[in-house]
Amino acid sequence: MPSDDPLLAEVLSQGDEVLTGQTVDTNAAWLAERLTDLGFLVTRHTTVGDDIEAIATVVDEAAGRAEFVVSTGGLGPTDDDLTAEAVSRITRRPLELDAEALAGIEAFFRRIGRPMAETNRKQAMLPAGARRLDNDAGTAPGFALEHRGALLAFMPGVPREMRRMFEQAVVPLLGDRFRLRPWRLVTLRCAGIGESDLQARVGRIDRPGIVSGFRTMLPENHVKLRVAPDVPEDELRGLVAALRERIGAAVFAVEGLDDEPGGSLAEVTGRLLAARAETLALEEGASGGLVVASLARHEDAARRVLDARVQLGPDGPPDDPAYRAERLRTRAGADWGLVTHPAGPVEDAGVMQVAAVRLGVAGPEVQAARSVRLPGDPSRRQRLAAGAALDLLRRALSGLLDEGNPDRPDAPSGRE
Amino acid sequence: MPSDDPLLAEVLSQGDEVLTGQTVDTNAAWLAERLTDLGFLVTRHTTVGDDIEAIATVVDEAAGRAEFVVSTGGLGPTDDDLTAEAVSRITRRPLELDAEALAGIEAFFRRIGRPMAETNRKQAMLPAGARRLDNDAGTAPGFALEHRGALLAFMPGVPREMRRMFEQAVVPLLGDRFRLRPWRLVTLRCAGIGESDLQARVGRIDRPGIVSGFRTMLPENHVKLRVAPDVPEDELRGLVAALRERIGAAVFAVEGLDDEPGGSLAEVTGRLLAARAETLALEEGASGGLVVASLARHEDAARRVLDARVQLGPDGPPDDPAYRAERLRTRAGADWGLVTHPAGPVEDAGVMQVAAVRLGVAGPEVQAARSVRLPGDPSRRQRLAAGAALDLLRRALSGLLDEGNPDRPDAPSGRE
Repeated sequence: MPSDDPLLAEVLSQGDEVLTGQTVDTNAAWLAERLTDLGFLVTRHTTVGDDIEAIATVVDEAAGRAEFVVSTGGLGPTDDDLTAEAVSRITRRPLELDAEALAGIEAFFRRIGRPMAETNRKQAMLPAGARRLDNDAGTAPGFALEHRGALLAFMPGVPREMRRMFEQAVVPLLGDRFRLRPWRLVTLRCAGIGESDLQARVGRIDRPGIVSGFRTMLPENHVKLRVAPDVPEDELRGLVAALRERIGAAVFAVEGLDDEPGGSLAEVTGRLLAARAETLALEEGASGGLVVASLARHEDAARRVLDARVQLGPDGPPDDPAYRAERLRTRAGADWGLVTHPAGPVEDAGVMQVAAVRLGVAGPEVQAARSVRLPGDPSRRQRLAAGAALDLLRRALSGLLDEGNPDRPDAPSGRE
Repeated sequence: MPSDDPLLAEVLSQGDEVLTGQTVDTNAAWLAERLTDLGFLVTRHTTVGDDIEAIATVVDEAAGRAEFVVSTGGLGPTDDDLTAEAVSRITRRPLELDAEALAGIEAFFRRIGRPMAETNRKQAMLPAGARRLDNDAGTAPGFALEHRGALLAFMPGVPREMRRMFEQAVVPLLGDRFRLRPWRLVTLRCAGIGESDLQARVGRIDRPGIVSGFRTMLPENHVKLRVAPDVPEDELRGLVAALRERIGAAVFAVEGLDDEPGGSLAEVTGRLLAARAETLALEEGASGGLVVASLARHEDAARRVLDARVQLGPDGPPDDPAYRAERLRTRAGADWGLVTHPAGPVEDAGVMQVAAVRLGVAGPEVQAARSVRLPGDPSRRQRLAAGAALDLLRRALSGLLDEGNPDRPDAPSGRE
């Protein structure tokens, strides 16, 4: 922990959509994570609806408790967007037209080729003396000001606009106003290992200034290290190396160290193929096309797929998946073959009825087969099957097939 | 709106994981939606960390403002689970061992075949006189009590356990304590129509007791109607019929009326194929396998796919997609052929580099082609391409191809 008193921050969200549960508040989580990384101690999130009294109350109260208050939502052009007015009231600063804000809104509408509605003019009315926060991605500018000794920043609720504005306009303000001591985040991305086994291998990290956590992003499991600014780089690298050793072949990427590229399982697997200038053919039964669909999102990976066939109907006799993968690569003229099919004959069952998947991989010098159980609903089973297939290919490409059997992809405990 | 004063509710979330953004708070959104449906007016969400002072303060304050306060998290077995203690402090009720709660926890551990740790005993310590809320799915029982004239319910933070407990134990309590007048939710699921066009067609619904809203779930756009209990069924059905008429062929399912099955675009399309006992062959270029991957999740739909091929490399000469679809269905011996390929020749580009998709569909009596622009990042473009392809097939299966050109799948405004 930094020796100084922590900087306290609160996160506010506004809008009836969030309040009635129509929208899950991803903004609050994103902001809380960024603020934590910047060295703030986030102490409270509060959400209220499009109600001027409620907004004024929570903004005023939060300003009395925290050094920094960040709010999203309520900056739109319609009658129920009330934030600027609520802030004007509690800070006793009248709303004034910000000419540059108006010019920015007008320019936005010119760019998308539509006329600006008169109501959008309202979005350029900011509390007197407030600092405008430009919005590159939408119409609503944000604003920042001081109140009760705290810095307050107000941003739109659209996540894409909010995130851009935070990085481009708010982070520099925070740097000017506070002595930030950002923590670092290092993530070990793992596949083919259950959460409980992963926790057991990582164990307890007792170094003050390093906080470890786990997160499941099906089919991946992540180890997250939050690292205080005073932890030396050498020590951090030593710890990461020790964890890699303890976790073994399940680690497929490390993010947050300068010289590591990171990426998702599909991205990393595609990169491995690209580095070897090799190609892939796919035959997807039990994974229903999700392997190719996830490779397709990454250019490097997409270029490597020569052929992909999805077979959802009942499978033929349960022949050896490694043999099938070999036959596939030969027929398709690809360097690698990867197949997923339901374990055992499945009578007339839709693909996602299967409870287990058999996997086969074959490449220039290697062939292997695996069986993996698939717990959960159809969508979860499909993701587990596709993840296990990609992971098998990744291990084959990296020469890691012999490093023990991956245990089954555990159902994550805790919140999902 | 109901004529009575609305019942006010607040939602509290506890835990450092939520506070630091490690976990997105889906519990708050879920509870807010359920409470709104039950007839409550949700006025605030508050999140605090594992801090006994903070928990005690927000529980006490919320009890002073609302008729019902529901809280999740902080009921686990470890030292940082402090909710029962915080509630004990503000209500001046000592913590007492609840023998049935302990028996339930012991039974849970017997069921999963593990010994109970001594720390789990703590989870059976409830504020004196509180009503135990049983947990069928985990170790932590919840509890409910009265404070400052409000009903307070405390539940665990694991979503699966929380949701079960809410439905089984909390909803009956609410029914005993309050005169609930639940609202209904009716959703019109639409595809192939942009959000702005959809809003323009729906217009303003000026009937008190019916609140309309929009939600984008790429590639679908939804119209949601929240309907007060005093709105007659006939009138509601009349409104839904009028909206279907105004929106036209873009409506593919209605949910929330008794006689409508609902479902996602893939599910509905699969159901249409199943009703006609027909089969489908797929050739996915620009959608990278996502059409088959989404059909595979639904048994009805999965059974209908005879053959699916994904071609990610550069496409051949830009021949007519309807002709390609016809050739595909003939070759595969399927009733329907559906193809997606990049618009125009794309030099050596990964699939998701394409800015537009050409779609072709062919069936027993119909052939059609479409072009759709694909804005956004690769993952978004892939979802738009797959959605447009499924929607084209759905319209062809329903004889709706002639009902105007679907406008482009708009970039959704607002939160996603």
